Amino acid sequence: MSEKRKAVVVYSGGMDSFTVLHRAIESGAEVYAINFNYGQRHDVEISKAIEVCYDLGLPFKRVNIVALNSLINNSALTGDIEVPKGHYEDETMKQTVVPNRNMMLLSMAAAYAVNIGATELWYGAHSGDHAIYPDCRPEFVEAMEKVLAIANYEPIELVVPFIHGNKQTILEWGMQRELDYSKTWTCYDPQWDGLVKRLGEPKACGKCGSCQERLEAFELIGQTDPVEYV
Amino acid sequence: MSEKRKAVVVYSGGMDSFTVLHRAIESGAEVYAINFNYGQRHDVEISKAIEVCYDLGLPFKRVNIVALNSLINNSALTGDIEVPKGHYEDETMKQTVVPNRNMMLLSMAAAYAVNIGATELWYGAHSGDHAIYPDCRPEFVEAMEKVLAIANYEPIELVVPFIHGNKQTILEWGMQRELDYSKTWTCYDPQWDGLVKRLGEPKACGKCGSCQERLEAFELIGQTDPVEYV
Repeated sequence: MSEKRKAVVVYSGGMDSFTVLHRAIESGAEVYAINFNYGQRHDVEISKAIEVCYDLGLPFKRVNIVALNSLINNSALTGDIEVPKGHYEDETMKQTVVPNRNMMLLSMAAAYAVNIGATELWYGAHSGDHAIYPDCRPEFVEAMEKVLAIANYEPIELVVPFIHGNKQTILEWGMQRELDYSKTWTCYDPQWDGLVKRLGEPKACGKCGSCQERLEAFELIGQTDPVEYV
Repeated sequence: MSEKRKAVVVYSGGMDSFTVLHRAIESGAEVYAINFNYGQRHDVEISKAIEVCYDLGLPFKRVNIVALNSLINNSALTGDIEVPKGHYEDETMKQTVVPNRNMMLLSMAAAYAVNIGATELWYGAHSGDHAIYPDCRPEFVEAMEKVLAIANYEPIELVVPFIHGNKQTILEWGMQRELDYSKTWTCYDPQWDGLVKRLGEPKACGKCGSCQERLEAFELIGQTDPVEYV
């Protein structure tokens, strides 16, 4: 009996990793999702990720790394700084960079991969993020590939299917398969109705760089985003 | 006014990183120690690290990553497996490998470095560990150097002063400077007197691979280890 190869997917709950998750499943691998709570303001994405994995019947590894926040307290995504409005290209979006985030997440996901005997590690970096996030660039991916090949007894292959694509490429791939993007969360600055935050379903702000990029991608492929905006 | 360069040192409280800490200080850098509680059985080393940094007046960043244990539950250093006796070369010592440990620790230490504006990251890998720990080997260090150079806006230099040395080299360096190795902890399997564990000061077991390597290093340079053994 030949065993299926195992793949760990770093799955935030956003539309990129949601698509990557489905691409890993389509590849025929036995998929294990891993999700990190690092104190992100937009932790709505975690609930989305849980629902999706529950529906798909996938193992879902949840890791709370809020303790690491004391290391990375100068990002708008985790600290007390306001989430900047505007496009990703803008200088202010640099405030949303979490220092060394992907290297940390990938190294933890790799530990999990070693532990369960997975030989592949998938994540959703793409070219739309290259300008602003150094740890989403092809050269970062290549350098990490080399580390992951030798850091443990068994090599781990890093799979980044959309590294040369962008949000539009990702969305096109998913729409061809009729993936339901209402099950994803993208906005960095979720908006709740009323005074009590975190009660019920929030709406997306539509103003942060993350929302803008998502809306643009839907527009470019001539589709409507199923997520509600303020 | 020229500012001193800042260096983060991964400081477990063991004799290797204790020596590296002093070497970083001697290099003239402004030193920031970072220490990880990953649920290691031998967390006596953490108390030692705290004492040393307190005495030296160094910033000491303590990070609790016990939550990550659910990722790495198959090592004798963190799980319920007994710590194997015998020499490092023995096959059983492989049980003390914590999957992807150094990659995780270095990536978190690097996030801290970015956060405080440090340009250097020091750690204590050496050739004595090469056989058993893949993430202590020169090829791992080289691959990590390349990642750390590009993972963030500012490059981080990885400094591993004893990568081509061994425990003896490390000890010789420290003894020449009269460092007090009673302030370090090496044993993987601390032994307490009496029934109540973790009360008072434990003794080193003298039998695990870590103890044996330490004792050998002291013997080779003709000195007595100031730490108490069972």
